[in-house]
Amino acid sequence: MALALAVGPAAARTPDRDQIAKIVKAQRPATLKALQDWIALPTIAAEKRNATAGADYMRRLALDAGFQQAKIIPTDGVPGVFATLDSGAKTTIGIYFMYDVKQFDPAEWSSPPLEARLVPRGTEGQALVGRGAVNQKGPEIAFLAAIKAILASGRKLPVNLVLVAEGEEEIASTHFAQVVAVPEVRDALARSIGVFIPTAGQDQNGSVNMTLGAKGAVEFQLIVGGETSDRYPKADVHSSNHARIENPAWRLVKALDTLVAADGHTPAIDGWFEHVRPLTDRQKQLIAEAAKPEVEAQEKKQLGIGKWIGDEPYGTSLERFYSQPTVNIQGLVAGYTGVGGKTVLPSRAEAKLEFRLVPAMTRDEAEAKLRAHLLKRGFDDVKVVVSGGYGPNETAEDSVLVTSQKRLFAEAGIAYTIRPRNAGSWPGVIFNGPPLNLPAAQFGVGRGGGAHAPNEWLLIDSSDPKVKGLEDTTMTYVDYLYVVADEAAKRRR
Amino acid sequence: MALALAVGPAAARTPDRDQIAKIVKAQRPATLKALQDWIALPTIAAEKRNATAGADYMRRLALDAGFQQAKIIPTDGVPGVFATLDSGAKTTIGIYFMYDVKQFDPAEWSSPPLEARLVPRGTEGQALVGRGAVNQKGPEIAFLAAIKAILASGRKLPVNLVLVAEGEEEIASTHFAQVVAVPEVRDALARSIGVFIPTAGQDQNGSVNMTLGAKGAVEFQLIVGGETSDRYPKADVHSSNHARIENPAWRLVKALDTLVAADGHTPAIDGWFEHVRPLTDRQKQLIAEAAKPEVEAQEKKQLGIGKWIGDEPYGTSLERFYSQPTVNIQGLVAGYTGVGGKTVLPSRAEAKLEFRLVPAMTRDEAEAKLRAHLLKRGFDDVKVVVSGGYGPNETAEDSVLVTSQKRLFAEAGIAYTIRPRNAGSWPGVIFNGPPLNLPAAQFGVGRGGGAHAPNEWLLIDSSDPKVKGLEDTTMTYVDYLYVVADEAAKRRR
Repeated sequence: MALALAVGPAAARTPDRDQIAKIVKAQRPATLKALQDWIALPTIAAEKRNATAGADYMRRLALDAGFQQAKIIPTDGVPGVFATLDSGAKTTIGIYFMYDVKQFDPAEWSSPPLEARLVPRGTEGQALVGRGAVNQKGPEIAFLAAIKAILASGRKLPVNLVLVAEGEEEIASTHFAQVVAVPEVRDALARSIGVFIPTAGQDQNGSVNMTLGAKGAVEFQLIVGGETSDRYPKADVHSSNHARIENPAWRLVKALDTLVAADGHTPAIDGWFEHVRPLTDRQKQLIAEAAKPEVEAQEKKQLGIGKWIGDEPYGTSLERFYSQPTVNIQGLVAGYTGVGGKTVLPSRAEAKLEFRLVPAMTRDEAEAKLRAHLLKRGFDDVKVVVSGGYGPNETAEDSVLVTSQKRLFAEAGIAYTIRPRNAGSWPGVIFNGPPLNLPAAQFGVGRGGGAHAPNEWLLIDSSDPKVKGLEDTTMTYVDYLYVVADEAAKRRR
Repeated sequence: MALALAVGPAAARTPDRDQIAKIVKAQRPATLKALQDWIALPTIAAEKRNATAGADYMRRLALDAGFQQAKIIPTDGVPGVFATLDSGAKTTIGIYFMYDVKQFDPAEWSSPPLEARLVPRGTEGQALVGRGAVNQKGPEIAFLAAIKAILASGRKLPVNLVLVAEGEEEIASTHFAQVVAVPEVRDALARSIGVFIPTAGQDQNGSVNMTLGAKGAVEFQLIVGGETSDRYPKADVHSSNHARIENPAWRLVKALDTLVAADGHTPAIDGWFEHVRPLTDRQKQLIAEAAKPEVEAQEKKQLGIGKWIGDEPYGTSLERFYSQPTVNIQGLVAGYTGVGGKTVLPSRAEAKLEFRLVPAMTRDEAEAKLRAHLLKRGFDDVKVVVSGGYGPNETAEDSVLVTSQKRLFAEAGIAYTIRPRNAGSWPGVIFNGPPLNLPAAQFGVGRGGGAHAPNEWLLIDSSDPKVKGLEDTTMTYVDYLYVVADEAAKRRR
């Protein structure tokens, strides 16, 4: 497949672009190798897997890319990494990386999840399949390759970089605030015009979905059983005893039932919507622009569903997607979970849940409202374990980070849509909220899928010039740094 | 530990009793070996394990004990076994065996569950630990040893025997009705005065708990997800999508919530109590006699609880235990079930439930009411899978089976209580209901525990003469056959 390097006005702004592009191409084997080695080393906080080794590899990746210093920042959990690259430029950009990945079950994969093999992907080209391919190691490696290529061309970067990386993104960034709170890290970030996370943002037609923020996420578990009350047995007992002994699974059902309305999705926690801001006219307009029938068909197919909630039209479902806070059940586990039945009364029942929060809700508010809601209804035997979380983030459409993206896409002929926010979550609030109050965004081209699912993939070679493969994605990061430098300079004039 | 052979008037009725007791003692190694070999061959219908081999072993056990014929009866599931022993006696007794056992996880056992090792049991003596030790292979082997010993003494049995065995008791006897419906089997049973299952009925103080029937049991699963409606995804998807896609786990919670009242235990299925008969004065009297404080303390300790439902007194809790039909959650499973959380929207949610039924409820009635209840509330996307079940059974206190037990215990100085029914279940309704309408009971001494739990055990050598070990238990079956023959003869006079 031929490479389709971006050309156009944006490219013209990048000095020595052809030379840099040649370097990127020459780097390809090393870049792929670094990505494959990284995928072979999965850091999974939930499984206490590769915390130290993952942080160390992240640190070495930064130094290898050209950061002048990179250090491991210890936390009460998995360590973070902090690195800086001072180019003597007037503009500093913050970069956020996650080096951890979601859990996986190799039995569910058609290609070994840690081998990161290159496999054909239908008519789209060639994809790398592995855990972390798109979420988030692939885009991050492409960004590092961009820095490397600029430096290898003999030039300084047009901006200074401050990189902060964490290994607990997939458990809701439990200790990431500790990394950013280190004075040296905080002060370095405070000098930036904002922070972005590299992201493979293109859909099958090559359009990039820009976002102006993201929902917050809070993960928690509700637990009932012998460990929370002596009404329940300490170990599973014969089920005939339910005639005289309470069943913690019923208690869990009763508690859960109060959390959403009869429709099965509208949150019913007391005061839940108190601080939920309705969509603005601009946000509604952005959503309407995104609501295309062909995208709907593609999404329904990918998600394996026939209907949105309430069988609503796509536009309405997208308004829900971007504007509604949720209370989701991730999993249920109690008693016997094998094939068929087993006559036991369980000693323990657990529900795994998660909130998605929208502005101006906060993490602490959500947790406090949940606890108050349960206690008010007498569920003092239901233990609430909050395993991690953070609030939503929001970035202005006229911030340098965002105007630079729009300009780059327009000049390079890359179609884009702007969505009011990402319905998923990333801990941008750590930058976006006090004390830093920085713009925080996602940025990147390229295409992938299967985040959190089996057979996660990232397109490496694209058969469609509109959809960027690995090298074009890398060059777009190169171009972006120059556009940001130029846009920031304009503001200073 | 010295054997404490039963002596007294009942023993006097058994001819050549000393000789038979000697044979039982001499048989001990062979009896234990047969039990250990049987435990090493677990038939587990839910896991499709050892169906054919288990039936064959059951057949050989019967022939080895002295049954003149034993044959395998095919069913649509695990086969049954039918055996007869014609002594030319005037009285015929039916015997019911289960040759299957409950599932187990060896990791939870302190002694390998299939090795049936003999291990000390505190001050109680020596116990055999293995899956099926008490439920039900141990008591069944003791009964077979009794037949063997009488025959080895050169005598005919005082009664004719009709044995029916099944391999699906632990999945609610799904196909056992097919065994009993075979004309040859049905006609043989119809000639009996009733059917009993050998049971280790003694508590720690040596008192036997007689029962006058048992609750019925119906196992079923409720399933919601991509397989039941296109509102739900076909595979787990990223949890952010819950803002626009229904979650089958919430739907399951909403359906479950309607099945029991706010108290978390009272069944709330429409019309559930329509045919539930209240306790009679005699039944209440029997329960009051069983409600001893020392038994309560022992039971609470065994069950690992501090409180009965509603913190009620023991007598009330026992009335519930014996009289109340239940809707129990055996297990819940949906989405992510590992440690902590995982940001998925599950494609499937399943609840494993079970009814316990009391007279005059029937299995078909319970299933029909459940289905009507869910459909009335619009839960047409909740699939109901009934995996097995049967109704309750009840046997008159003045039947030969029961009066013989009372007489034997009284004459042998064995304390006993009579309980209106077993709160657990066995498919006595197959004998008790039409067309056979036979008395159906449990009978036996000896002591064990951990049915359906890890470290299931049966006391083999007892340090308390009031609590019977293996050989005394065997001799009690010998005595019982003679008492039944005598009681039945009285009725014929």
